[in-house]
Amino acid sequence: MQDRADRLRREGRTIAFVPTMGFLHEGHLSLMREGRRRCDDLVVSIFVNPTQFGPGEDLGAYPRNLKRDLELVEQVGGDAVFTPSAEELYGKNYQTYVSLEKLPSHLCGLSRPTHFRGVATVVSKLFNIVKPHVAVFGEKDFQQLAVIRQMVEDMNFDVQIIGSPTLREAGGLAMSSRNSYLTAGQRKSALCLYLSLQKAQEMVAADIRDVKRIVEEISTFIRSFPETQIDYVAICDPATLDDVDMIQGPCLMALAVKVGKTRLIDNMILKP
Amino acid sequence: MQDRADRLRREGRTIAFVPTMGFLHEGHLSLMREGRRRCDDLVVSIFVNPTQFGPGEDLGAYPRNLKRDLELVEQVGGDAVFTPSAEELYGKNYQTYVSLEKLPSHLCGLSRPTHFRGVATVVSKLFNIVKPHVAVFGEKDFQQLAVIRQMVEDMNFDVQIIGSPTLREAGGLAMSSRNSYLTAGQRKSALCLYLSLQKAQEMVAADIRDVKRIVEEISTFIRSFPETQIDYVAICDPATLDDVDMIQGPCLMALAVKVGKTRLIDNMILKP
Repeated sequence: MQDRADRLRREGRTIAFVPTMGFLHEGHLSLMREGRRRCDDLVVSIFVNPTQFGPGEDLGAYPRNLKRDLELVEQVGGDAVFTPSAEELYGKNYQTYVSLEKLPSHLCGLSRPTHFRGVATVVSKLFNIVKPHVAVFGEKDFQQLAVIRQMVEDMNFDVQIIGSPTLREAGGLAMSSRNSYLTAGQRKSALCLYLSLQKAQEMVAADIRDVKRIVEEISTFIRSFPETQIDYVAICDPATLDDVDMIQGPCLMALAVKVGKTRLIDNMILKP
Repeated sequence: MQDRADRLRREGRTIAFVPTMGFLHEGHLSLMREGRRRCDDLVVSIFVNPTQFGPGEDLGAYPRNLKRDLELVEQVGGDAVFTPSAEELYGKNYQTYVSLEKLPSHLCGLSRPTHFRGVATVVSKLFNIVKPHVAVFGEKDFQQLAVIRQMVEDMNFDVQIIGSPTLREAGGLAMSSRNSYLTAGQRKSALCLYLSLQKAQEMVAADIRDVKRIVEEISTFIRSFPETQIDYVAICDPATLDDVDMIQGPCLMALAVKVGKTRLIDNMILKP
């Protein structure tokens, strides 16, 4: 991959990169199309990265379908797919990690304390391997995107980071490979995430600005759906992810809800 | 610097990089000559990196002489000098660090717990900025070289790391910018580091293989020099830096001694 990148760069060609964990859906494809539009060459990685899963999380169960993934990448005009093994990326004496001091202490980082260290580490490694000019990430993983933007700035990576809007299924459920875990009944409950975001936006539109009140009302609303368990419902500063008390400008509303055993996340910018 | 690197790489030219903290001496110049020999283009950075200094260390006092440094780089045929400010490399919301889990828990890492995190972080940043093919580091900082080699492998940096032998003043004192802190009397005491390494090698040659005995004898020897205070005297595995009990193959002997207020380090591979 590095030799390939060097060769392309010597030829003056630009490289777009979309890192994924595979089991590709229309959301991933939209990221790839965005990369395709921006650069001469499109590289997609498919790697279920063990270092971003905590103990007891779904690393072993994470859905995989490489054959179908390769077909989908070809359909959107991808030029190369990078599918390393865990042993290739993390050798037996592996010991180096990239971590951020502030952004991971919010939202998903609270229940997944080593997750963003794993993300920052693997994305750094992949940037060094793929050597892209542009990398595209989904806004569905808002905190991940914030972590990567900060890391790129702090570490002086010469890579332009593009955030790409969340794609949703009919009904509003944010597309995610993890949706494949859901039963038909759970899929109905999973609508609570998007409905909560809409409901919060309606409250803000109706001049309710007190975050505590909104979060309480939304939490009660979510608990009315079967098989749901709230990890967090948060309204925060979109830049720092610090909690806010009153909505005075655009705020990020982010939530994580377990539906059965499946942990789902979603987010929206609330605009007063 | 990044645009410059991209341009050189598009032209098929190779870049050697020597990162320094300035106040250059003949040791640095030997690293530069090594880089000069290996690549088409030689970049030297001069940056007294605050994140590798601990509280109470000599960040503020560290010797600086940019004018003389620039002349020396020019003398050895350097093509570019990169001299960022601390504010440029560490912005006000800076929060990303590269750290290693094992190698820093030995030798200098014990008395300087955040030092190698600072080194790994700044070297990663400088690699992303200078985009070298080859980087040259001194073997005098043996643990630093080990940390950087491991980091480069773990993080998939496409950079070849070259270790370059320690240069010594007459009498054997390893060249270091920090030698400028020493008074004439301290300079005599500072010879104890190299004399200790030689003495240890003589003991090994005389078939003494018990590490505890060697370390005790050397420690007594060092304490016989005025104004010395031992930080550590260690004999360890050159790959893992784990302590060894018996010398059975080539072992690293490393030591750190304060002479007055100046902390000096040196090392040698002991060969049975």
